[in-house]
Parts: sequence; structure tokens; C-alpha cells
Amino acid sequence: MHAIMAEPLDTLQTPCLLLDEARLRANAERMRTHLAGLGVALRPHLKTAKSLEVGRIAMASPEGPAIVSTLLEAEYFAAGGVRDMIYGVGIAPAKLPRVVAIRAGGTDLSIILDSLEQAEAVAAHARASGDAIPVLIEVDADGHRSGVAPGDADTLVAIGRTLVAGGAKLRGVMLHAGDSYSLRDPEALAAAAENERVAAVTAAEALRAAGLPCPVVSVGSTPTARFARDLTGITEVRAGVYMLGDLFQAGVGSVAVADIAVSVLATVIGHQRAKGWIIVDAGWMAMSRDRGTARQAVDQGYGLVCDQAGQPYPDLIVADANQEHGIVALRKGSGASLPELPIGAQIRILPNHACATGAQYDRYHVLDGENRVTATWPRINGW
Amino acid sequence: MHAIMAEPLDTLQTPCLLLDEARLRANAERMRTHLAGLGVALRPHLKTAKSLEVGRIAMASPEGPAIVSTLLEAEYFAAGGVRDMIYGVGIAPAKLPRVVAIRAGGTDLSIILDSLEQAEAVAAHARASGDAIPVLIEVDADGHRSGVAPGDADTLVAIGRTLVAGGAKLRGVMLHAGDSYSLRDPEALAAAAENERVAAVTAAEALRAAGLPCPVVSVGSTPTARFARDLTGITEVRAGVYMLGDLFQAGVGSVAVADIAVSVLATVIGHQRAKGWIIVDAGWMAMSRDRGTARQAVDQGYGLVCDQAGQPYPDLIVADANQEHGIVALRKGSGASLPELPIGAQIRILPNHACATGAQYDRYHVLDGENRVTATWPRINGW
Repeated sequence: MHAIMAEPLDTLQTPCLLLDEARLRANAERMRTHLAGLGVALRPHLKTAKSLEVGRIAMASPEGPAIVSTLLEAEYFAAGGVRDMIYGVGIAPAKLPRVVAIRAGGTDLSIILDSLEQAEAVAAHARASGDAIPVLIEVDADGHRSGVAPGDADTLVAIGRTLVAGGAKLRGVMLHAGDSYSLRDPEALAAAAENERVAAVTAAEALRAAGLPCPVVSVGSTPTARFARDLTGITEVRAGVYMLGDLFQAGVGSVAVADIAVSVLATVIGHQRAKGWIIVDAGWMAMSRDRGTARQAVDQGYGLVCDQAGQPYPDLIVADANQEHGIVALRKGSGASLPELPIGAQIRILPNHACATGAQYDRYHVLDGENRVTATWPRINGW
Repeated sequence: MHAIMAEPLDTLQTPCLLLDEARLRANAERMRTHLAGLGVALRPHLKTAKSLEVGRIAMASPEGPAIVSTLLEAEYFAAGGVRDMIYGVGIAPAKLPRVVAIRAGGTDLSIILDSLEQAEAVAAHARASGDAIPVLIEVDADGHRSGVAPGDADTLVAIGRTLVAGGAKLRGVMLHAGDSYSLRDPEALAAAAENERVAAVTAAEALRAAGLPCPVVSVGSTPTARFARDLTGITEVRAGVYMLGDLFQAGVGSVAVADIAVSVLATVIGHQRAKGWIIVDAGWMAMSRDRGTARQAVDQGYGLVCDQAGQPYPDLIVADANQEHGIVALRKGSGASLPELPIGAQIRILPNHACATGAQYDRYHVLDGENRVTATWPRINGW
């Protein structure tokens, strides 16, 4: 954390990424309280924020636990003192030497996999390196992506036995209810969370019935974490986007627009008045190409436009974008009027997707409650 | 350029960005020859490659000319010896001190604008700094984005007079036929190029008729540069994507798939055989969220899948993507069969959009004609 004298937003070159620290802390606290009430541990996913400073606000302790999406994140957070991590993408055998190197540095990094081929490769590497690499078997909650079917006890047990017999460690099962992102109704989200829970417990029981260990039963996504009502049998919940929030999660209903802690600061660089366009210096490079809200009830274009202080203008969105140009316009059919924003005026844009927009930046400019910049926090990108 | 011993692709950690040097050089040469035949200068746009090594292959000389999309690029290329650049995004007054600082370092950096307000701000800054900042007036070729209408002589002349009288320098006009990206038919593309040319010449003549200087008449986009047949009255053409190529430009017809010089190297990390899915470790973070081909005749998903040596598989695309997972599958309705790609196998993915995919990486791994890695070239991202 690089503390600086609090400075006004006008001193920043645009586009740049802003982080409202009070909103971040409130989002972290809300999820912590919710899951504590359900009696499970929170393992924050650091793939959204990719920042040690943000991670320390979200994690139970500076040592973790946490989950990451790349080995570069694992290396970065391990160097920052995080001692309990999952690398949450199915392991490629060629990545095992990096996993073992991180573990040799004193971080309990576990990996995930969903095939016998991977289990055999991990067991062979565990034997060769003398490190009993801990493994979670990825289980498929909803057909969204990867994972062994929760009812496929034969495959689960075969993978578990291969790991244990081969010198690796079977730590448990993990699931991600990715299809919850397409929902919106709270009842449907609660049902998705329950479906994820049942799939996890089913898989864990299959391993235990075969005499295999399964101490960890890990589930999670921001929507199911937020809408889960009962987590019996689950030991930990993972979620990440909730810390920062974004318009897509607001469309799902798992955060409120007023809780979104990240925004892009941009400057007006032109007008096409006959078309009702305001041109700003934040295009898709600054916002990312993410158009996830296009499939939701409210299409937010490339982002929702706010004044410099962060207050949304009615119906004003980044309607289209080129690489370094955003075209700001009223939502189609809106009865609102275009604000008068002269050349040089600053605006703030709430992003569709915090993970995608954040990845375009190497730092956050951190704001206090009066929209002054109090610090710069670095982000890690890449693999 | 960091020369290394030529190494096989298997030594690389995935995902990572590959650059086929022979294809890059051939793409650069093809555009150079085409424009030389039309008697105009080429000003390569370095916003796609964002690399000094690539820029040196594309530029007429190590000193330029070139155009860039961010001031960070301008600073980076100026530090690398480029002496003639345009910053090709409408200027925000708060950026003028950085422009003057780059110019003070010995680089002839010019800027663009399309309003009297900007012209007044630039003139005031030119007087205050004692630097006669050179300006191109942005002219709107096709209603795509920014620019003064080419027939609006009053505004063009008022901007020109404000600049000249105020102590800045009027260097000319510049246009970008952005709407050409939505075309495909060679005749329509040639017509778009001619439309861009006529708009440019019309605006230049309006300035000259008022006694204002207009030495530079600058047009360009990769499609119109490629399909232009006559560039009478034009002094320079700008283009950028042509160097690397991508599936979107292949869809427009301005590059061939076999000329695409960038690809993402990825590794197979899983299978969902019942669904015909191969899971790889290149998701949308590795490919970018760009889905530009979704609006074209051939939707390439998140990218076209090739074998490790770069040969496309029939109909195999990244059909869907999560942050770090790509779901590889056959195109809908394909009669091809899914290749046998075991866990750990490497594939290469051609991107929809070289600018967007490139921005996810801080370096290129450069390949020789035998797909060996011969060098690592850094890229610059951010603002």
C-alpha cells in the first residue's frame, strides 16, 4: 500500500480505475456476516481484485484462506504472506513444478482436478518431488463447465484412490455453481445454492463411503453464496466478485448498484450533439469488451455513467465503444435528458464485470468517503 | 529484444501469446507495397502491437512515422527512438502537459481534436508552454464516432483559425473510416475507402480555401487501407491490425486466416466427453471478451482452434469461455469429428481481435518458421 496525501480526482490522468474503500469494506463485511450466520468458513476468491490490499480486507486473516485463478496470483499472494490457497483451475501437469515451488516456500497450496489422467500425473509428481500435493476433486454442480458428475461415485472413488495410493493427498471436493449467473429470481438462486450443496454432499459421501478422506467440502459463486439459506455438510464457501460488485451481479440481484466499489474515471473529449452522443476517453480497452448485461433485463452497454462524485445519471450509459473511445448516450427510449458535460469534465463509469474491467489496469486509485484519492494499490495481471 | 536459445513450445507456461515473425514481416511488407503502389506514405498504428520490436518492422524507419492510441504508448515509443507520432484520440486538456513533455524530449508528437473548445485549450497551452503544438483536425468520414462533418467548412475553418491565431500549429486533417469494419464485400470496402478519401479532400480544401495550411491529409483503417484503389489528395494512410491480423479482419476480408500472426498457446485441462467439450486453460481472460465475429457470417466463438503447430482444426472453436476456462467444441452443425486431445496437449487459438487479445499480455513469445521460440518481445499496456 502506497499511502499518499489525499488528492482530488481532477489530479488523475484518465482513464484509470477507482476503488471506493468504504464500499469494499462493507461488501466484505456483509458476506462475512452472512456466512458466519450459516456456520461456514469464507474462502475469498482473489481473481477479481488481484490485489494483496483488497485480499487482506476480504480474508479472515492475512494468511488466508483464499482461492486464486492463476499460478501468478498464487505466487504473488504467497509472497505477500498468504499461507492457505487453492489454485482453482483444473491442473495441467506442466504446471506442477510451479505448484511444488510455491508449496516449498511455506504456502499450503492445493490444486483441483476432475480426471484419472490428472490424478495419475499428480501422484507421479508427488512421488518424484517428495511433496504430498493436496488435491480437491472438482465436481460438476450444474453442467456449467468442468467436474465429475456428483452421482458418478465410481470415477470419484477411482480418482481418490489413485491420489491416496500414489502419494498425493485427497483433501476433499469443490464445486462452482456457474449457471447461477444466468438467474435473477431470489427463489431460483436459493434453489441453485441448494442444488450446489446437495451435489457437494453427495460427492463427499461417495468418497467417505469408500473409506477415503474428505475433510473439505467447498462450494461457491457470488450469487449462491449470497442466496444460500442452509449449508449443512459444507465446510467452506468461495466467492469473489461480491467484494467489488458490478452491474452484472446487480442484474442477478447479488449486489446493489449502490454497493459497486469499482469504477472507471474518464474525461469528456468530444460531442456529436445531433446524435446525442458524448465522447469520452474510456473505450473498450478501459472498460473491457465484457457485454454480459446484454443478456440481462437491463442492458448497461459498456457501463453505467455517473458524475465525478459517483452518482449515476438517469439512463446514461456507454452505449458503444471503440478501443479508446466511449460513446455515452441515453438508453434507448429514455425520457431523461442528456447532462451538460463540457470538454474536460470527468465522469465515472460502473463496469459490467469487475473481473474483466479490473484486468485492464495495473493499479487501483483508492478513494475515501469524500472521493479523495488516498492510496494506490497495485494489481497483478497475467499468468 | 531479448534473444534466447530457440526452444520448443512445450517449454512455455500457458496461456501465453505467440507471434509468428515471418507472418508479421509478410503482413508488413504486403501493406507497404500496396500503399507504395498508390503513392502514399504509411503511418502504422501501433495500438495493436504495442511493441517497439513490432513497430520497427512496420515503420518506414526506426524514427517513424507512427500513430498511437494512448499517451503511455507515445512515451514508450518516444523512449524507443520514434520521433514522428500522432496521438490519435481527441485531446483532453488535462493531457496537454504530457504531450508537451514528450515533445520536449525531441519527438514531433501531434494531437487531434474536433471542437472549438479543444482548439482554444490547445492554443492557450501552446502559448503558456511556448510550444507550438501541431494539431490535426479530426473529420468524420462515416458517422462512426468523432469528427467534424467534412462539409462543415465553418467549423473546420473556425478551429483552424483558433489554432493558428492562438499559437498552435495546424498540420492538417485526419479521418478514420470505422464503419468499414462492418463490411465484407470488396466493392463495398473500395467504396468506403473512396468515401473516406473524398471526405478528407473536401475538408482539406475547405481549410485551404480559407487560406489555412493543410499539409497532412491522413486517412485509414485496415480494411480501407487494404481496399483503396485511388488515394489522390491523400498524403498518408494509417492502419494497425493488418500487421498481426485476426479473425474479425479475416471476416471482413482484409487479411487471410493463414496470415494471422498472433495466437494464444493453451493446454488441455479436462474433458466433458458426453457434451463434446474439451476444456483448456485459455478462457476469456486469455482471449479477451471480444466477440466481434458474432456479428459476422462466421461466428468464431472466442477463437479458432489450431494444433500446436498452428494448423486450424476443421470447425473447432472456443465455443464458450469462463475467466480461466475455454470450452472447445465443434461449430454447431459441423460434420467434423472432435480431435483426440489428451490432458496436457497444447493447442493454439487464433483470436477474434488482435488489439483486445494482445492487451491481456505483457509480452510476445516470438516464433521462427519451425515454431521454435526465438525471443521475447515486451508489450506496453495501460495509459
